[in-house]
Amino acid sequence: MQFEVDDRIHTSAFWLGDWPLSAVYLKNHADFRWLILVPRIANAQEIYQLSIIERHLLMDEMVALSAMMEALFKPDKINMGALGNMVSQLHVHVVARFKTDVLWPHGIWQPDLIANPYDAEEANGLVKILRKKIEEVSVTS
Amino acid sequence: MQFEVDDRIHTSAFWLGDWPLSAVYLKNHADFRWLILVPRIANAQEIYQLSIIERHLLMDEMVALSAMMEALFKPDKINMGALGNMVSQLHVHVVARFKTDVLWPHGIWQPDLIANPYDAEEANGLVKILRKKIEEVSVTS
Repeated sequence: MQFEVDDRIHTSAFWLGDWPLSAVYLKNHADFRWLILVPRIANAQEIYQLSIIERHLLMDEMVALSAMMEALFKPDKINMGALGNMVSQLHVHVVARFKTDVLWPHGIWQPDLIANPYDAEEANGLVKILRKKIEEVSVTS
Repeated sequence: MQFEVDDRIHTSAFWLGDWPLSAVYLKNHADFRWLILVPRIANAQEIYQLSIIERHLLMDEMVALSAMMEALFKPDKINMGALGNMVSQLHVHVVARFKTDVLWPHGIWQPDLIANPYDAEEANGLVKILRKKIEEVSVTS
């Protein structure tokens, strides 16, 4: 079966680029700097279904993405999560968290998360910056 | 500085064993089968602070733990998270989730999580089973 990104990710996030394993997205939620890695492996739902090479590469991409976000956004904490309770396709959230953000210190995966899409100008500006960064980063294992 | 597990983990979870990188704990919360990996690296707060060998080993332990929990608990979904907003010491949650559990489909890291410690008999039984499993699993990279 050919790999396709789940529609619920594709319609709620901006595509930023493809790394060796994963497509990288920016979640369309202006309250957070929230990126998502979607490994391009058909039918994967759990990390343990990946081969050892794939899962180490996923870890390298999680690290590359969080280090990039750390440098760019200077957050108080990086949060990572692989849940998949709603969208079962394997995807990893990497979120820059601030002590001043609306859900601190809790996780973002909760009922109190209220939709707050970017306005077009803000999205365009951020996507442009992030696409350039994603392209520049060389994920090494 | 010598490594010590943060008191807030040590007092809210049962120690199950030590794997090559991480101490393994069972969170004292009877609503979930919720395990925690604490890499025994002093002062680590973010995964990107680990060496490449350590972070690949952490991934191998996340996979070994989730595969063990999958076989033992037969959950609907494994949830993994590395947050650290409250306890900054690096630790990774691995949680067996069920469509019937009290917080499904949301994450567990949220204000609606109500404390529900195990009673002693239930904890003793589960810890015994899990310690044996943790000892049996050989984490390979």
